[in-house]
Amino acid sequence: MNFLQERILADGVVKAGNVLKVDSFLNHQLDIRLLDRIAEEFASRFADAGITKVLTIETSGIAIACAVARELGVNMVYAKKGESINMDGPVYRAEIVDSNGKPVNQVMVSKKFLQKGDRLLIIDDFLANGYALQGLIALAEEADATVEGCGIVIEKGFQDGGQRIRNLGYRLESLAILESMDAATGAITFHG
Amino acid sequence: MNFLQERILADGVVKAGNVLKVDSFLNHQLDIRLLDRIAEEFASRFADAGITKVLTIETSGIAIACAVARELGVNMVYAKKGESINMDGPVYRAEIVDSNGKPVNQVMVSKKFLQKGDRLLIIDDFLANGYALQGLIALAEEADATVEGCGIVIEKGFQDGGQRIRNLGYRLESLAILESMDAATGAITFHG
Repeated sequence: MNFLQERILADGVVKAGNVLKVDSFLNHQLDIRLLDRIAEEFASRFADAGITKVLTIETSGIAIACAVARELGVNMVYAKKGESINMDGPVYRAEIVDSNGKPVNQVMVSKKFLQKGDRLLIIDDFLANGYALQGLIALAEEADATVEGCGIVIEKGFQDGGQRIRNLGYRLESLAILESMDAATGAITFHG
Repeated sequence: MNFLQERILADGVVKAGNVLKVDSFLNHQLDIRLLDRIAEEFASRFADAGITKVLTIETSGIAIACAVARELGVNMVYAKKGESINMDGPVYRAEIVDSNGKPVNQVMVSKKFLQKGDRLLIIDDFLANGYALQGLIALAEEADATVEGCGIVIEKGFQDGGQRIRNLGYRLESLAILESMDAATGAITFHG
């Protein structure tokens, strides 16, 4: 069991509907030392990937992506969601669609900050159905940038997002893959 | 002129309506080395303040607050705005009101993450009218935590938020205070 799995067992809280609350250390209050360990782990796994930029999506990906970017010595850019104002100039835009193909949100990045030649590491806190991640990949493709990999802190292995992204041929590294959660008992099991 | 003022002159873009775009280095794309220098500067200015936690508000404060928390060796918590879902359990809540006292937004922090005895450094990217900062201060007061200081990256000195916060007796440190901006010429002047 790795440091993140241990922390999830210690401080994660399972809620009904396959929700895992990690707000005490990852997405409301942030344990900065844990964040650094997460960043070191991603930097080590993608050390050979020639990453030139880290891409994430607001809000909860930002802290993690910044920490990873620092470890890799590159800059970070975060995509804004549909409701964001304050974007001017040309933007790349992608729809986040649900399993029925219905648009649920829009993601945008200024064209100034994603460019042909960029070798991207996409970072996010959770991967469940993978729609947000697919939106980020679509932005990268629009920009003719290369997605060298995706780094996810917690993947819900019982949803199909991870499999779908891997099937598309992307290198996807998840630090903890949840195999099952039980809101009644609080039990959590991991894959691998 | 300090490193941040220099960077603002080099890469900031003045838009009509007293808007300063810093999206190439601070709040859309993030220059991680600049972020570290900003964090070192805040950590140095508040080194004597006995900070136990950094508090900010989503979205654009998160990266800065994380970097400052790392320098200070403490954890970070970010308040969520009114539209945030996914908050359960007891929360502190404050209204962000405009100059007419009209509520424009709500900020929330889980009661688990702000406590009596916490000595807070509040961090944000911009300070203009100060309403968001006052909302964060109100959250801290609700929690009986102490606001030891406020660190702002860019203060719009021609708006009254900074003066209002200082008049309330809070220690407020801004790394760059804009004195004037001219959207027609792009000219920017700093206070001090």
